[in-house]
Amino acid sequence: MVSLIGAGPGDPELLTLRALKRLQRADVILFDALVDARVLALAPRARCIDVGKRAGARQVAQATIERLLIRWARRGLRVVRLKGGDPFVFGRGGEEALALARAGVPFEVVPGISSAIAAPGLCGIPLTHRGLSSALLVMSGHDLAQAARLIEALPAEGATLVILMGREHRVELARLLLRRGFPARAPAAVIQSASLPQQRLWSGDLSQLAEAALGRELDPHAPSVLVIGATVGVARALAAALPQAA
Amino acid sequence: MVSLIGAGPGDPELLTLRALKRLQRADVILFDALVDARVLALAPRARCIDVGKRAGARQVAQATIERLLIRWARRGLRVVRLKGGDPFVFGRGGEEALALARAGVPFEVVPGISSAIAAPGLCGIPLTHRGLSSALLVMSGHDLAQAARLIEALPAEGATLVILMGREHRVELARLLLRRGFPARAPAAVIQSASLPQQRLWSGDLSQLAEAALGRELDPHAPSVLVIGATVGVARALAAALPQAA
Repeated sequence: MVSLIGAGPGDPELLTLRALKRLQRADVILFDALVDARVLALAPRARCIDVGKRAGARQVAQATIERLLIRWARRGLRVVRLKGGDPFVFGRGGEEALALARAGVPFEVVPGISSAIAAPGLCGIPLTHRGLSSALLVMSGHDLAQAARLIEALPAEGATLVILMGREHRVELARLLLRRGFPARAPAAVIQSASLPQQRLWSGDLSQLAEAALGRELDPHAPSVLVIGATVGVARALAAALPQAA
Repeated sequence: MVSLIGAGPGDPELLTLRALKRLQRADVILFDALVDARVLALAPRARCIDVGKRAGARQVAQATIERLLIRWARRGLRVVRLKGGDPFVFGRGGEEALALARAGVPFEVVPGISSAIAAPGLCGIPLTHRGLSSALLVMSGHDLAQAARLIEALPAEGATLVILMGREHRVELARLLLRRGFPARAPAAVIQSASLPQQRLWSGDLSQLAEAALGRELDPHAPSVLVIGATVGVARALAAALPQAA
């Protein structure tokens, strides 16, 4: 049996109770780069294997990960595949589920809190809000050509746009959104390391997001969630009314 | 202090560890209709008040909820506002946060797993998948006029569309999507009571979703999540390869 588990945005307290149960009983855990060490510490029995992709380090190929999951499950081990956020939101969980199913290995999906929802939430940015946003659009900024095609087809208002893995191409993404007709003054935010002690928030507008220099409050290396839409303004209203909450 | 907490899709095991901690210490809990009784049972000390909106029952007005949160917090009670899913995804959490901030009442947001992500995930439907979907669109089907405006502006392919509160207007929503250019053969699913013992899945295509009669496998009253997109086909491939996992 393999459990495809979402570890949430990072803070171990944002794990689900089911994820904790599975970790406590796990024999082997294959984990990704964005999984916090404190989460792994909750699995005392397990052999923990880092298959994450960090800049510069050797990557473990997707096919290798799938082969390892199948091999260990066939040996009767309790196998956990642990991913940041949710396994089915940019987590390649679907590919792993298919590989397991085709090998006849039973699996379960344990949903986790995607950073697409947790990062704005923890910064006081509602994804939907009466009169401001009635939908949520989540995409990845990793593949710029693919992102460009998607942005062409997105509604320019009435929804909150969340771009995961948005750091590297931030400037290009913001420019694509402006070209698409998103307002230059659309409130925008960049959230880094959501839920962790080093969480950071930059807040401005889309035209500023399109500028190369965002100021010193951002870490040039940390994973970043971009949020564009009127609901970013709600977080500002919250911070103005109650400074300690923001 | 008020905690705005997402209870996840229903199963208490899909609560976060932080939500559990807050429930265990809570003095008073204001909860919504979709919060499971087993979740409330985790809060032994708390007075639990149902402010949820059920068909036929008397509703508690939003302004009343906000007034109660502020009153109890000012009395020094540990107050929990408990919502199904995530408080900031169609949960009106932003409105409550603003009311609290304006009253000078400190609050925190504890993200939960939105049904928009958990329902497909628990049915084996990835939200994103290489070559099939590179984005996730989440909207509500409750207000048909608003949904119609949004659907006009949505990309007809390359993304997975999730419609929460989609039961009542299912037929109209499907017809709007067909008119927008979504393919009649686009895989579609209806998921009810995700994560609970009575979870149900209907799977077909968009043209079938637009038909009034969906067969007997669906509960005409249960809350329903609609999913439209090629990734619904992944769940079918999983079920075909590994029947017991589906």
